[in-house]
Amino acid sequence: MTFRIDLNCDMGEGFGAYSIGNDEQILPYITSANIACGFHAGDPATMRKTVIAALDKKVAVGAHPGLPDLIGFGRRNMSITPAEAYEYVVYQVGALEAFIRAEGGSMQHVKPHGALYNMAAVDPELAEAIAEAVYRVNPELFLVGLAGSHLIEKGLQAGLRVKNEVFADRTYQHDGTLTPRSQPDALITDEEKAVSQVIRMIKEGKVATRQAVDKEIVAETVCIHGDGQHAVEFAKRIRATLEESGIAVMAMGLET
Amino acid sequence: MTFRIDLNCDMGEGFGAYSIGNDEQILPYITSANIACGFHAGDPATMRKTVIAALDKKVAVGAHPGLPDLIGFGRRNMSITPAEAYEYVVYQVGALEAFIRAEGGSMQHVKPHGALYNMAAVDPELAEAIAEAVYRVNPELFLVGLAGSHLIEKGLQAGLRVKNEVFADRTYQHDGTLTPRSQPDALITDEEKAVSQVIRMIKEGKVATRQAVDKEIVAETVCIHGDGQHAVEFAKRIRATLEESGIAVMAMGLET
Amino acid sequence: MTFRIDLNCDMGEGFGAYSIGNDEQILPYITSANIACGFHAGDPATMRKTVIAALDKKVAVGAHPGLPDLIGFGRRNMSITPAEAYEYVVYQVGALEAFIRAEGGSMQHVKPHGALYNMAAVDPELAEAIAEAVYRVNPELFLVGLAGSHLIEKGLQAGLRVKNEVFADRTYQHDGTLTPRSQPDALITDEEKAVSQVIRMIKEGKVATRQAVDKEIVAETVCIHGDGQHAVEFAKRIRATLEESGIAVMAMGLET
Amino acid sequence: MTFRIDLNCDMGEGFGAYSIGNDEQILPYITSANIACGFHAGDPATMRKTVIAALDKKVAVGAHPGLPDLIGFGRRNMSITPAEAYEYVVYQVGALEAFIRAEGGSMQHVKPHGALYNMAAVDPELAEAIAEAVYRVNPELFLVGLAGSHLIEKGLQAGLRVKNEVFADRTYQHDGTLTPRSQPDALITDEEKAVSQVIRMIKEGKVATRQAVDKEIVAETVCIHGDGQHAVEFAKRIRATLEESGIAVMAMGLET
Repeated sequence: MTFRIDLNCDMGEGFGAYSIGNDEQILPYITSANIACGFHAGDPATMRKTVIAALDKKVAVGAHPGLPDLIGFGRRNMSITPAEAYEYVVYQVGALEAFIRAEGGSMQHVKPHGALYNMAAVDPELAEAIAEAVYRVNPELFLVGLAGSHLIEKGLQAGLRVKNEVFADRTYQHDGTLTPRSQPDALITDEEKAVSQVIRMIKEGKVATRQAVDKEIVAETVCIHGDGQHAVEFAKRIRATLEESGIAVMAMGLET
Repeated sequence: MTFRIDLNCDMGEGFGAYSIGNDEQILPYITSANIACGFHAGDPATMRKTVIAALDKKVAVGAHPGLPDLIGFGRRNMSITPAEAYEYVVYQVGALEAFIRAEGGSMQHVKPHGALYNMAAVDPELAEAIAEAVYRVNPELFLVGLAGSHLIEKGLQAGLRVKNEVFADRTYQHDGTLTPRSQPDALITDEEKAVSQVIRMIKEGKVATRQAVDKEIVAETVCIHGDGQHAVEFAKRIRATLEESGIAVMAMGLET
Repeated sequence: MTFRIDLNCDMGEGFGAYSIGNDEQILPYITSANIACGFHAGDPATMRKTVIAALDKKVAVGAHPGLPDLIGFGRRNMSITPAEAYEYVVYQVGALEAFIRAEGGSMQHVKPHGALYNMAAVDPELAEAIAEAVYRVNPELFLVGLAGSHLIEKGLQAGLRVKNEVFADRTYQHDGTLTPRSQPDALITDEEKAVSQVIRMIKEGKVATRQAVDKEIVAETVCIHGDGQHAVEFAKRIRATLEESGIAVMAMGLET
Repeated sequence: MTFRIDLNCDMGEGFGAYSIGNDEQILPYITSANIACGFHAGDPATMRKTVIAALDKKVAVGAHPGLPDLIGFGRRNMSITPAEAYEYVVYQVGALEAFIRAEGGSMQHVKPHGALYNMAAVDPELAEAIAEAVYRVNPELFLVGLAGSHLIEKGLQAGLRVKNEVFADRTYQHDGTLTPRSQPDALITDEEKAVSQVIRMIKEGKVATRQAVDKEIVAETVCIHGDGQHAVEFAKRIRATLEESGIAVMAMGLET
């Protein structure tokens, strides 16, 4: 039996004179880049530069649409309607796709950002609106969502191919949701544990939970963080360990 | 000999709770809609609504990208670089195209807005950057610019099909430029004169100038204003008079 | 026994090329203008123009700070922290106060807008942060909030003078909250009933509720809407009827 | 004879999740902080934090208003009218002043940012509008402008106290303007030369120019850059050298 996994990372999250993250150094270790589209972060110049850098490194590119909240970096919930979610996703996916097309590439996937991602995980109407937006812009795109969430379910119903995303550095609850960051044990700071959790999710389809029972989980893509002091080192380490464990690290859109 | 002309109008220039113009009433009289893309005006909801309304009325749709200056409605010159012009056009054209594709339509053209249009008319480097942006996003698009301007010239050099735009209600100078609005005789307020100027431009390829000499001009599309008290009436009148004069009023992308 | 009431209206809610409302026509009938400060609506030019117009008509001026959500007109809840609420209010109150001072006037009050107003009515921490912001910028300002809400309570605790706001055209619940707009009987469309509700609130300190019991209410300022077809007529009517009923219509800051 | 100089630095130029510069490390060496006000950079949270940090270090605080161009960091010329310049300055100065007042401090000065500063140096109408804005918000404020420029002249005419700003790391032309950055010798990279230029401007009132003649110049405040690799070291060095040279380094608003 062969195992495979995609490693994705949020990229292009600067704005104008501002930069954030370590895009150039992370690119060698990931297989899919989620590129900000100008709402929560990203501006046209940053988008173009990031698309060129990712394509140059043979990293698959996708859109990372967020809420229109640059001050809050798209991390604050907003009570938007499903129609607004649809419109924001169409707009941002289209904007990014134009940069990709202008460079001769093609878009692989869409992964909502921050609060939009979190709201879509638990709100079926928002999830459905986002899935419909992606499908109507391009039915060939993959939709990335929290493993087992409403976004995954609605993506499938819309006719899209979906990818279940898992986290290396977060603990899980028995219902498959992430432990909220407000809890003391929400984060896994031990890198070895983090990598082990991912390998088990891929090979066994299970994850330990805070409630001390295992939960079944589908792991198709792992979220790699691009900022923080040890981000580059961790990306390098998790990629190496996955490959040593016999897991093929490859972009979600690639045929085995 | 047959004559043809396209009538274009800026549309979708509201933003959020704000609306402007008389889009619904103007649509029956025009053949091409230039839809704002979120920089100088327009937001995702307005873009979607406007695309649907135009396609429903069989009006061809195009992008109307502007400068990132919502407060100034994109009418104030900004010293942007050619690279920035390229990036702003790619972004906005892509965003609008996604809405058009989501509705099963296809984009016909791109016409820059306000200060971006005016700067591109006289600045060959900006013009070239804009033309390249349009070409790289979609080489089938028409590029609309001021008749005889650098934008037209650079569009042709980039390999695009171009459309020379003329104005019914503006006077011309001997070098083919529009009389600046700061001059007392910049505007033609007599509707009959305005229509006659257009008919002569189409049939004779000439326009009278303030310097009392005729100037050769290519008239392929006429700019119809969507706001103002008499906008709808004038749109109706010019369309009727053109057709009565034996000029086919049809979208720029249509084959005769 | 003498009765008094203030009539307030949201003003200056245009942005750049966009205008909304009928500020000039409403001004003669109100006593306090809540002026948008650039976040949910309003831009520096509109703020200046609105301040000048209100001062010219001897209408007291106040700040109408909102959430940083121009697309949503500040009507969508956002999960901001109390610290962010504090900062947004300080910023906007300061910006407006500068325009007022530049014209030789002085600010009378602060009334949060839309979702910020609604969230502050029910969230004591947000309410406290807003009250503290107003107090620290200028402890002489009045704070306007939904009658009987947390914003009123926290304003008093902060040491501010407060004004309880009531609505003519909304029905009330037995706990003093407004009937949500999602309910069929949320709005009072009969103008006579609307005016009568206000007069009873002022003279008897009571309002009928959907639950058919009276609720005690303090009515110190009435919200007058500035947009809509009949806005100006209704403003004129309610002012006239209040005065005919022996109620002094005067700005909240005026001494009797 | 005693000499004095103020050392000013642009501060608080982050935005939301983004930070820029080394504010905390620079503060010990400067005497005046120019704090961004939300247009070209800065957001309410950053403004509050920066005001608190500066006041805590006994550094005088001022407003650093810019053009409404966050993508371009306020460095791109925009064809704004004098009325717009006035409005943008009133708005931003007011917003910052509220944060300062909320912390119990008082504003010392206003220094326009980037393109607004440069345009105001050479455009008397813009300069006059900015000076009027500052005066009408608070006539006690100092206005900082390029030494000998129209902004200084118009500030004096408006009745303001002004401060002539000089640059350590820029070369001058015989007319007193800075050598444009497009020229190869625009920057002084030798730190010793930079410091010497400043000392000579302060003690002799003269600066060497590219045209090999001395130009008279008034040096009242020196612009210290807060970003860049050696920013902190240079700030430390120039302050130490000035003091060793018998020049009192003190905020512009302090009495000797």
